[in-house]
Amino acid sequence: MAELVDLKDLDDETARKILRAATGKARELNTRMNVALVGVDGNLKAFFRMEGAWTGSVDISIRKAKTARYFNMPTGELGKLSQPGGPLYQIEHSNGGLITFPGGLPLTTRDGDIVGAIGVSGDTVENDHAVAQAGLQYFQEN
Amino acid sequence: MAELVDLKDLDDETARKILRAATGKARELNTRMNVALVGVDGNLKAFFRMEGAWTGSVDISIRKAKTARYFNMPTGELGKLSQPGGPLYQIEHSNGGLITFPGGLPLTTRDGDIVGAIGVSGDTVENDHAVAQAGLQYFQEN
Amino acid sequence: MAELVDLKDLDDETARKILRAATGKARELNTRMNVALVGVDGNLKAFFRMEGAWTGSVDISIRKAKTARYFNMPTGELGKLSQPGGPLYQIEHSNGGLITFPGGLPLTTRDGDIVGAIGVSGDTVENDHAVAQAGLQYFQEN
Amino acid sequence: MAELVDLKDLDDETARKILRAATGKARELNTRMNVALVGVDGNLKAFFRMEGAWTGSVDISIRKAKTARYFNMPTGELGKLSQPGGPLYQIEHSNGGLITFPGGLPLTTRDGDIVGAIGVSGDTVENDHAVAQAGLQYFQEN
Repeated sequence: MAELVDLKDLDDETARKILRAATGKARELNTRMNVALVGVDGNLKAFFRMEGAWTGSVDISIRKAKTARYFNMPTGELGKLSQPGGPLYQIEHSNGGLITFPGGLPLTTRDGDIVGAIGVSGDTVENDHAVAQAGLQYFQEN
Repeated sequence: MAELVDLKDLDDETARKILRAATGKARELNTRMNVALVGVDGNLKAFFRMEGAWTGSVDISIRKAKTARYFNMPTGELGKLSQPGGPLYQIEHSNGGLITFPGGLPLTTRDGDIVGAIGVSGDTVENDHAVAQAGLQYFQEN
Repeated sequence: MAELVDLKDLDDETARKILRAATGKARELNTRMNVALVGVDGNLKAFFRMEGAWTGSVDISIRKAKTARYFNMPTGELGKLSQPGGPLYQIEHSNGGLITFPGGLPLTTRDGDIVGAIGVSGDTVENDHAVAQAGLQYFQEN
Repeated sequence: MAELVDLKDLDDETARKILRAATGKARELNTRMNVALVGVDGNLKAFFRMEGAWTGSVDISIRKAKTARYFNMPTGELGKLSQPGGPLYQIEHSNGGLITFPGGLPLTTRDGDIVGAIGVSGDTVENDHAVAQAGLQYFQEN
């Protein structure tokens, strides 16, 4: 029998709670966000657009989550590599469009397993990142 | 000043509760669904993919919700009109791809205002429709 | 010197008046339409979405106008040829998506020159066609 | 019943007059423009391509209007943030393609409600912006 690969994926309850932690952080920062979660396979798992959030950020939050999972790194790290003259210049053209500025983070267990990603968009990239970080932190501490 | 048009849109709390009503119905039917909500503007408002739900249905549920809002009618009604020989044959090629089988319903208030739509995909179209209907019913009764 | 090809294109004033004739007909029919005009080159020339018109019909009206100009025939005529078993089955997959049910008409001068097309969407195909016809009739009589 | 969110949208008469104000400004500047309006939902509301205007600007004017509404800011502001090394570098890959140079403006009432956006393309970005500004100014003064 083949040695199949074990994967771990986000469960429903965890997904809901990460979303809640992230939108809670957004309210604490007095901002309105689009928050997207993808599972281990990179497909959308859960999404919420808060009242008054930019509608252009629906797509961006989902792309940030996918980008973070596609390459298993924070979107902002990828963005450092995709600048003019950089090693991954114009990588954004792949996969139907990537977003490579901050706000997307892999969801990594304390054991180092990546089980999905979170993408946040709706304000400055600092706030986007802070809200994504709040989602990740909730995940790792619970 | 101009005579602007008044619209009403889904608020956060209502969106969350409709999603919960729909996923609750799915559990009651012992099935696993993708549930999408769009606001009055047709943009994604909230989304949830239950554990084990088909990943191909992520896109279908979102398209069902958009289709229902684009034409202010249940997706299944549109599907009756788009059959070979029917008046709207091949309408699915518009708007980047429509889904015209059951599972998408406009969210209409008791006063007749359309404020968004729900799209459900993951099982038979009967079950998809039943879950969408549960979301709509919750909305209208609360 | 080459024998270059003479084309005739819609001028601004004519485009505006065709749009007005079409939306006037829509009001007379007590319906709300999306009306699109393309010029001789098939590119969008003018567009109007009436209050309350289906937003899914924005795209459909534009595709109807383009389809009518791409093949210099009413969209409904093309639709007869694209049915299952017909000679142009699935032609809708070309050109990024065609619409082949009624509501798109070439704008043909009384001399037989095609200078553009009109596409209408927002109600039954009978009403869509009637509104497109009103635009064409205005064009030919003025 | 749910606490729905109130929105205001462009009405037909206002849309027509904004379009007229913008094309009037274009004639005053002796230039030819594509002018697009989107409603509060980001969908196309009205469009006009003046005689002799660039056909490549049809798409650009529509994308400018959508971009301005998606992020509730002038497209040129977004463009300052999307330069190499900037916080939103390559944001143009989202939403099926954004345009982030000047010529797109949100349509904001004197009360601060955003009800849509205008996008203009066909000449220098200075002229594009001036024509969009004329449309916005008409809206706010009438």
